[in-house]
Amino acid sequence: MSCGPMDGLLVVDLTRVLAGPLATLMLADLGARVIKVERPGHGDDSRSYGPFKDDRSLYFARVNRGKQSVALDLKDPVDHATLLSIIDRADVLVENFRPGVMDRLGLGWDTLSQRNPRLVYASISGFGQTGPWRNRPAYDAVVQAATGIMSITGSPDGEPVKPGIPIADLAAGLYAFGAIGAALHGRTATGRGTHIDIAMFDATLSLLEGAALSYLATGTTPPRIGNAHYSIAPFDTFACADRSIVICAANDGLFGKLCRALDRPDLGTDPRYATNGARLSARDTFKREVEDTLRTRPAAEWLPVLDEAGVPCGLINDVAEAVSSDQADFRRMVVAAGGLPLPGNPVKMTDWPDPFERPPAPGLDADGPAIRAEFG
Amino acid sequence: MSCGPMDGLLVVDLTRVLAGPLATLMLADLGARVIKVERPGHGDDSRSYGPFKDDRSLYFARVNRGKQSVALDLKDPVDHATLLSIIDRADVLVENFRPGVMDRLGLGWDTLSQRNPRLVYASISGFGQTGPWRNRPAYDAVVQAATGIMSITGSPDGEPVKPGIPIADLAAGLYAFGAIGAALHGRTATGRGTHIDIAMFDATLSLLEGAALSYLATGTTPPRIGNAHYSIAPFDTFACADRSIVICAANDGLFGKLCRALDRPDLGTDPRYATNGARLSARDTFKREVEDTLRTRPAAEWLPVLDEAGVPCGLINDVAEAVSSDQADFRRMVVAAGGLPLPGNPVKMTDWPDPFERPPAPGLDADGPAIRAEFG
Repeated sequence: MSCGPMDGLLVVDLTRVLAGPLATLMLADLGARVIKVERPGHGDDSRSYGPFKDDRSLYFARVNRGKQSVALDLKDPVDHATLLSIIDRADVLVENFRPGVMDRLGLGWDTLSQRNPRLVYASISGFGQTGPWRNRPAYDAVVQAATGIMSITGSPDGEPVKPGIPIADLAAGLYAFGAIGAALHGRTATGRGTHIDIAMFDATLSLLEGAALSYLATGTTPPRIGNAHYSIAPFDTFACADRSIVICAANDGLFGKLCRALDRPDLGTDPRYATNGARLSARDTFKREVEDTLRTRPAAEWLPVLDEAGVPCGLINDVAEAVSSDQADFRRMVVAAGGLPLPGNPVKMTDWPDPFERPPAPGLDADGPAIRAEFG
Repeated sequence: MSCGPMDGLLVVDLTRVLAGPLATLMLADLGARVIKVERPGHGDDSRSYGPFKDDRSLYFARVNRGKQSVALDLKDPVDHATLLSIIDRADVLVENFRPGVMDRLGLGWDTLSQRNPRLVYASISGFGQTGPWRNRPAYDAVVQAATGIMSITGSPDGEPVKPGIPIADLAAGLYAFGAIGAALHGRTATGRGTHIDIAMFDATLSLLEGAALSYLATGTTPPRIGNAHYSIAPFDTFACADRSIVICAANDGLFGKLCRALDRPDLGTDPRYATNGARLSARDTFKREVEDTLRTRPAAEWLPVLDEAGVPCGLINDVAEAVSSDQADFRRMVVAAGGLPLPGNPVKMTDWPDPFERPPAPGLDADGPAIRAEFG
């Protein structure tokens, strides 16, 4: 089946749960053949994670649709030999064991790159293959906590808050996806693969942006600032009569438009709000002034007024509103795989299809007999 | 300079602020030559965004180090011709104008792919090149609000909270990075580039994971659940005597280890906590029970006990603790570029250097004369 730029690529997937499976899902969605190697009898832990629909794990299906499954006991000589036969013909291997496990299984980078010099070998771990924390067990929340991301989420007078998504896993999976593409490109020139070492910790640290830069600029840790922005004001949530909206007036022109749309020319000429720097300092005062006006009418009345004025703004949707939106539907951000509704692929390319119907996630060892026959 | 798998790649960067520049930063960090095209006199808006160090914007430097800058007025015929000469020799073009702007500039996909069929052309926008919301202005916070991510961040009895990072911009930049690598790989087989259409909205929606799956499974929108996990318990923050820690006992074995480490065998045998499903239902009660014990000692005393028992756990670091940690240092997650401290690259590859000293971000039009001479 020709369906994407990764057509013809053979990927050995030794990953479980989320970060690794997301990286290989992206390859599968773009046309690669992904062979997921699972533990006999048990399989990927996430097969038992909810939510379930028709007794099937959506968690597992979401990141494993379109892959093949073979159950191999990596300590069994016959199964080990089968795996090596697959690896000998593979372009990419992805694993997310703890550092050292692949070496102990006789599947380390040094060994496999000698067998197959063209192999791109991606390791994903909590804290990386190197460094003093490399052996720390690393679930998403442990890594999120370690990176400081929780310390900058939430209100200034509250407790640290974990973003409502497993960002440490996801960031690592996305960096791995990009790194694999880059390594494949490099291979066209060098003829050789490479060993990619992605840490959930590094990946998440690299997302801190303004907060990390503030620390690097000043040497002091940045405070939590609620829904505001470190560098731009007004750029925050604001309460209307019924619910809150987001307003991003990111430059002086947009600030002027905002004041006019609110019919508050006094704010537009107030020297306390004359520049972005001034507005950052007077953020709280400004927010109260704006909310005095916004609270007079519901969000549904304010948004068209602000839109018309060209002020970037929007509702704070809940998940149902977002996922069932016309835009999500138009963009095919929900697909069907084996009868299950699942998130779509945000990578859209004009030359390749982005179908609604996708191949399902495999049952444990569903492709085992065929794969053993092909590679055994 | 040979420094990465993207060596020899020529990238035309028509992006500003964050999502686009992050995608091209990844290419530059991995060896590509990135020519950033900026508006004469003004340049990328983010040149004026703080934080500043030595009067230089860390915001701009963070995502533009290692690039070249040329100032071109895209409506001026001479400058337009110079840009086309660069594009004729380029492998990749990345742009994040509003949908339609590139067409109006005579730089749309149809036009450029006819001139240069090998061109990989990546468009990054707020809501995508298609769909009813495509023309909505799209700052990060507007998109975050639209995707529902704020609705699932924060405590159940509080207001929606924006994760403390610009995740909509970052997710789009990372998907674009991966998509570009995939399209380059596809080009080796087809000889042709493609048009990549990445939306911040799609990218962020795709990160909702458990929350989106919960909606797709049940048709009802998921609640905010604070720092807990939709599918696993205990997987949350817990207060010790002085500060909170994260504990992730993601399966029955780890749950048993947790109860032993806390010296609370009563919890381990309590039928209310016998399975993950039961623990999910009794999450609040369990948290109070565990905190009754944890509050008797400070976090620094509990963490070694839990570590020794093999229970995944950790401190909730602030940004200073995270960025200045031994692990971040060992992993080279802070680098120096033109004398400025900046975040490092989480993509580590054994065959390529990951140096501490990096090339600086360019001044506006710093490479203009050389580039005009080369391509004019």
